[in-house]
Amino acid sequence: MNIDIERQTNTPLKEQVRLAIAQRIRSGLLAPGQRLPSVRQLADQMKISLVTAVQAYRLLENDGLVESIQGKGTFVASPQGPNNPWINQNSNGLHLVHQEMPANPFDWQLTIKDYLPRASFWSQSAVRLPPGILDLATASIHHSLLPLSLLNSSIQQSLREYSSSLGSYAPFQGDPEFLKVIVDYLKAQDLPFETHQLIVTNGTQQGIDLFARTFLGPGDVLAMETPAFSGSIDAFRFSHASIQPIPLDQDGIRIDILEDLSTRVKIKAIYTVPTYQNPTGAVMSLRRRRQLVEFAEQNDILILEDEPHRELTLSRRNVMNKLPPPLKALDMTGRVVYLKGFSKFLFPGLRLGVIAADGTVYSRLLAAKSIVDLGSPLWLQKALIPFFKHSQLKSYIRKLNQVLVDRSDLVAGKLFAKLSPQVHWQKPSGGMHLWLTLPPALSADSLIPEAHHRGIHFLPGSIFYPGEPEAHHLRICWTNLPDADLPKALDILCELLNQSV
Amino acid sequence: MNIDIERQTNTPLKEQVRLAIAQRIRSGLLAPGQRLPSVRQLADQMKISLVTAVQAYRLLENDGLVESIQGKGTFVASPQGPNNPWINQNSNGLHLVHQEMPANPFDWQLTIKDYLPRASFWSQSAVRLPPGILDLATASIHHSLLPLSLLNSSIQQSLREYSSSLGSYAPFQGDPEFLKVIVDYLKAQDLPFETHQLIVTNGTQQGIDLFARTFLGPGDVLAMETPAFSGSIDAFRFSHASIQPIPLDQDGIRIDILEDLSTRVKIKAIYTVPTYQNPTGAVMSLRRRRQLVEFAEQNDILILEDEPHRELTLSRRNVMNKLPPPLKALDMTGRVVYLKGFSKFLFPGLRLGVIAADGTVYSRLLAAKSIVDLGSPLWLQKALIPFFKHSQLKSYIRKLNQVLVDRSDLVAGKLFAKLSPQVHWQKPSGGMHLWLTLPPALSADSLIPEAHHRGIHFLPGSIFYPGEPEAHHLRICWTNLPDADLPKALDILCELLNQSV
Repeated sequence: MNIDIERQTNTPLKEQVRLAIAQRIRSGLLAPGQRLPSVRQLADQMKISLVTAVQAYRLLENDGLVESIQGKGTFVASPQGPNNPWINQNSNGLHLVHQEMPANPFDWQLTIKDYLPRASFWSQSAVRLPPGILDLATASIHHSLLPLSLLNSSIQQSLREYSSSLGSYAPFQGDPEFLKVIVDYLKAQDLPFETHQLIVTNGTQQGIDLFARTFLGPGDVLAMETPAFSGSIDAFRFSHASIQPIPLDQDGIRIDILEDLSTRVKIKAIYTVPTYQNPTGAVMSLRRRRQLVEFAEQNDILILEDEPHRELTLSRRNVMNKLPPPLKALDMTGRVVYLKGFSKFLFPGLRLGVIAADGTVYSRLLAAKSIVDLGSPLWLQKALIPFFKHSQLKSYIRKLNQVLVDRSDLVAGKLFAKLSPQVHWQKPSGGMHLWLTLPPALSADSLIPEAHHRGIHFLPGSIFYPGEPEAHHLRICWTNLPDADLPKALDILCELLNQSV
Repeated sequence: MNIDIERQTNTPLKEQVRLAIAQRIRSGLLAPGQRLPSVRQLADQMKISLVTAVQAYRLLENDGLVESIQGKGTFVASPQGPNNPWINQNSNGLHLVHQEMPANPFDWQLTIKDYLPRASFWSQSAVRLPPGILDLATASIHHSLLPLSLLNSSIQQSLREYSSSLGSYAPFQGDPEFLKVIVDYLKAQDLPFETHQLIVTNGTQQGIDLFARTFLGPGDVLAMETPAFSGSIDAFRFSHASIQPIPLDQDGIRIDILEDLSTRVKIKAIYTVPTYQNPTGAVMSLRRRRQLVEFAEQNDILILEDEPHRELTLSRRNVMNKLPPPLKALDMTGRVVYLKGFSKFLFPGLRLGVIAADGTVYSRLLAAKSIVDLGSPLWLQKALIPFFKHSQLKSYIRKLNQVLVDRSDLVAGKLFAKLSPQVHWQKPSGGMHLWLTLPPALSADSLIPEAHHRGIHFLPGSIFYPGEPEAHHLRICWTNLPDADLPKALDILCELLNQSV
């Protein structure tokens, strides 16, 4: 097993080993019943003492994550029902009989060092949910609210018009005709880009990853607004850059803390979701946006601006045009890389998004795209051309906004009426999340098993922190459940939280 | 500009700087007219002497790649027609008037260090071809030969059956129903995998990249059969591992050289295309396959087995079943990661492939997939379910083989009749490429401008080498041109080569 040990910290070695192995078990990298290295092997591989290795395994045994069997070795424990600390599952959990288990021919694989980060998004996604659970975790809009029939007819039309594109590769940056309709769509949202600035990606996540791989490596410093989307944390960790969490205030990422940081280290890049931030829902003010771009200019810093929810304004009037412009629109020197995703409100099943960038930053991201997958599928791009050209798209988005306004009112009404005032939250002006803050001593992680037992799932706040996590938050997404289930799920949530605070 | 200088080699510094900048210009990372750092800045940034910086720019000026303008600075030269050494273009080439050019606001970007490799595939793809050129370079099958109507009706059917999947994310490893039909397809090709071993990828290239990112980093050693697919070279270089080229003989990758290498360094992984190798078309013998797996077992090495062309057997009888089994079928200890692509003969416009792996190697690759793009598009997977279930698929592949047999006979006949015996080549038993070897003193790269001038394009052999390139080879792909154009392109090629040898 290859685990990076940090010898310059206050965290004891045995704790580091415990955490690293626990994360591998929780995320499913190590499967139940798998044999772990012997104490001696562990000590050798990690260059720690035998005593430390023994202590780490003992801590993991107390956590219920491993089992030691005299004369046989140490094994990943099998899940044992709803009280298991890491995975909740139904009652017929697998109980392996180690005595009869043959040696696993794949055991040698544990000696292979890999470059994976401790992945927070992945660890959550690996949680196997009991059937029938009401999902307040997944950040998506229920498919009944999405423009499926418009997509359907767009695909039909493209089969007639672009059939041969099923048999051809796309240019690495994307199909020129598709880029053109995207440019038109973005212009209608006050996002003035040109086709030569765009690269088609497999969703926003690939855009984040391309940026991280191209520009970040060990020794580089990324300043990241925190809390932040856990998928982005994973992608940045994968680059092995040093991640510096920067807190938010009500105007957005805090410039004073960035300035302070920049006196101590060279910041290479900043990551932010300025509009309807994930998970908090906050909107960065225009003044703060200007300050941020100016700060980046003065210090030769790149900015990665991620804007997946701009269209999801929650207002009975159409105020989208009153949103402050994206950072990219304030950027004259090619330092902002802008990510636009469509999975959140148009077509999660197609996973296409775009990057906008300038100069050599553009050409370098394009080179990276060519290396990682030779370009996004041509036919998928062609299939969306009629969709983006269709006049109904605009009215669909307007109607979606109205449906979501009603829903967010319902959510706010419920929580206002039922939830203890000890739990803090703010009705967001856009997006699809709600960020709840518990009393500081209460950990949302510790509530998960009981939540599953009662039939709901949400995301603990801890996974939104790249550094030291704050455990007393949780995020719910209120757009993913069918109409009938949402009130029920909120009732269960309020009851659970009220009994816990 | 950030360029890695290697101070422990025989290549002079000025040559290293020249090559690094030339590659950035040839690949389009630096655009025509772009201002380069001043001599002083270059010397500072790269920690070289002023004299070395001046010499490097002078060499680049002799190459026609940069222009120095007294009192203004050094600029990337604009292409100047068919004799330009790096890009061939039509006559109205852009001639920038530097005197009037405002300072480029993106110039500061050149100071940003990136982690991109010198990308061979990318540099070729960036070549802007004159219109109407006959393309013997792109490795694909002309879309008129692909099963487009079967794909069309499969998509139609899936729109009726799986419409809601347009609005949902896929599991990271792929849609279970899609994985099931892939398993059935693979079993029919004597590839006995189960769904829990598979991960859906955006084409084979993403599979190579996921493997490289997960398991390879600076200091790791990858042994790579050479010559090799240039896209794989780029992906491995992006990991910053040390790449050791291993030559092929007629039975495949040379075990004796691997054994010799393993006495000097710890080999972490081996990359091979054992069946219809790209670019040579070679097939690794069964005996060699067994030796290779055994060698990997004895030395705790991972193998990445890439098999994009297994179905493309060129024989009037169906001999696919007589092909040796893949390495993965000989692997009992989970050390072979198997890549199966479909872009080459089924649907290049959809870019879906699969990885097969076992144990923690599987779960680690899956974690990487979740980080890089959260999974491949669900609806695309659903759209292919009827396609893979359809009884016509098998007969399509059989018919395609017959068409390709006729074509390869035509190609072999032409070359046999017209090409000078000083050019060596072998009729391949499968795949879509032909590897031509010129007399050692002749560089295929040097023939490219004249080839473009005469109206054809091919790939110079140099891009298939991760280390020191052999320049006296070239690769043609004979499946991409329409029937009518192929003989014409081959005539031009023979004439050009005969006049050059």
